[in-house]
Amino acid sequence: MPYVNIKITREGASTEQKRQLIEGVTQLLNDVLGKNPRTTCVVIDEVDTDNWGIAGVPVTELRKHPPSWLESGD
Amino acid sequence: MPYVNIKITREGASTEQKRQLIEGVTQLLNDVLGKNPRTTCVVIDEVDTDNWGIAGVPVTELRKHPPSWLESGD
Amino acid sequence: MPYVNIKITREGASTEQKRQLIEGVTQLLNDVLGKNPRTTCVVIDEVDTDNWGIAGVPVTELRKHPPSWLESGD
Amino acid sequence: MPYVNIKITREGASTEQKRQLIEGVTQLLNDVLGKNPRTTCVVIDEVDTDNWGIAGVPVTELRKHPPSWLESGD
Amino acid sequence: MPYVNIKITREGASTEQKRQLIEGVTQLLNDVLGKNPRTTCVVIDEVDTDNWGIAGVPVTELRKHPPSWLESGD
Amino acid sequence: MPYVNIKITREGASTEQKRQLIEGVTQLLNDVLGKNPRTTCVVIDEVDTDNWGIAGVPVTELRKHPPSWLESGD
Repeated sequence: MPYVNIKITREGASTEQKRQLIEGVTQLLNDVLGKNPRTTCVVIDEVDTDNWGIAGVPVTELRKHPPSWLESGD
Repeated sequence: MPYVNIKITREGASTEQKRQLIEGVTQLLNDVLGKNPRTTCVVIDEVDTDNWGIAGVPVTELRKHPPSWLESGD
Repeated sequence: MPYVNIKITREGASTEQKRQLIEGVTQLLNDVLGKNPRTTCVVIDEVDTDNWGIAGVPVTELRKHPPSWLESGD
Repeated sequence: MPYVNIKITREGASTEQKRQLIEGVTQLLNDVLGKNPRTTCVVIDEVDTDNWGIAGVPVTELRKHPPSWLESGD
Repeated sequence: MPYVNIKITREGASTEQKRQLIEGVTQLLNDVLGKNPRTTCVVIDEVDTDNWGIAGVPVTELRKHPPSWLESGD
Repeated sequence: MPYVNIKITREGASTEQKRQLIEGVTQLLNDVLGKNPRTTCVVIDEVDTDNWGIAGVPVTELRKHPPSWLESGD
């Protein structure tokens, strides 16, 4: 009966990509722990970049001026 | 000082229905555990059906092709 | 497919009281929104009173010196 | 590697105010526990006042008829 | 900068199994959305079976008397 | 009526440090948004290092072999 919550920034994830996340994490819980997919629940939250911060700075600002320690693809 | 988070799919819950959820769960915590309603906080999250998955499939697809194991009314 | 998370302070809720919370909130979601109990998931978190604060003060301290604005039974 | 989730009612917090929350809570975790800002993640959720309840009543209604026990500024 | 929270019942997941969950979901977010593993954070919560309910019944009871609609392996 | 959830690894935060987090974040919400401390609720979750992962690796392993990109104090 697992419950999984995935939070990502709202930056254009497609319906197909979200479907792949749901399918993939449900499969992972079945593979690793034998959890029943029928009782595995996945919720994806997409969060505005103004509302997500790392290193004390909103992601909106990090996207404009990416610091060197933060690699691309994050 | 309970905190309750209710997550449902965004499929048209009305303001009145959400009021009933808030009232009902606050009453339940008072009835069962004697919790003070004034410090009971309820937050309802409505989640897009593309962003909610069960059995590895987004709810958007389950609504179109409901599997037999999933009863109506869910 | 609702998911409900109930957070309460760890102050001796019994197994029977927790059963009543699970049963009651599942029934509430069925009554108000017609949600299927079989896909309704409830998780109760019991939190140490040192780790829960209200009005900027840990509940451990509020229990020793309850402020007048905070009624009994909370 | 702290993760902080701040939930507030959606009542007009500005981008600058949200930036201050992100900066302030990241600094707090550094001051109190020595946590590295680069691995401190903050997510702010803004919740509709119909979807937030206290004392069993949605905030939308509390705003119209504020009870005496609830001070202004909340 | 994804954040993933996995909730499972506390029924003996090993350190190695939890490592596989952390590795697998981080890889999934990299594969599907190109998310940087260095800023992907995973938190696993293990919940007592008395504190987790489905179909209005605590998992502790479901384990003793599994209903026919709930397959094994969940 | 803010609700704040702070998740940290369980690595010896003291009762006094947790009190400072509760006090500090409540003050921050009052300073930035004018939120009433009496309805500000803070919950701190301490998570075992086996159950927290970053970069696809449990914190337990990162503590033994800290990667160069991860600064001390995290």
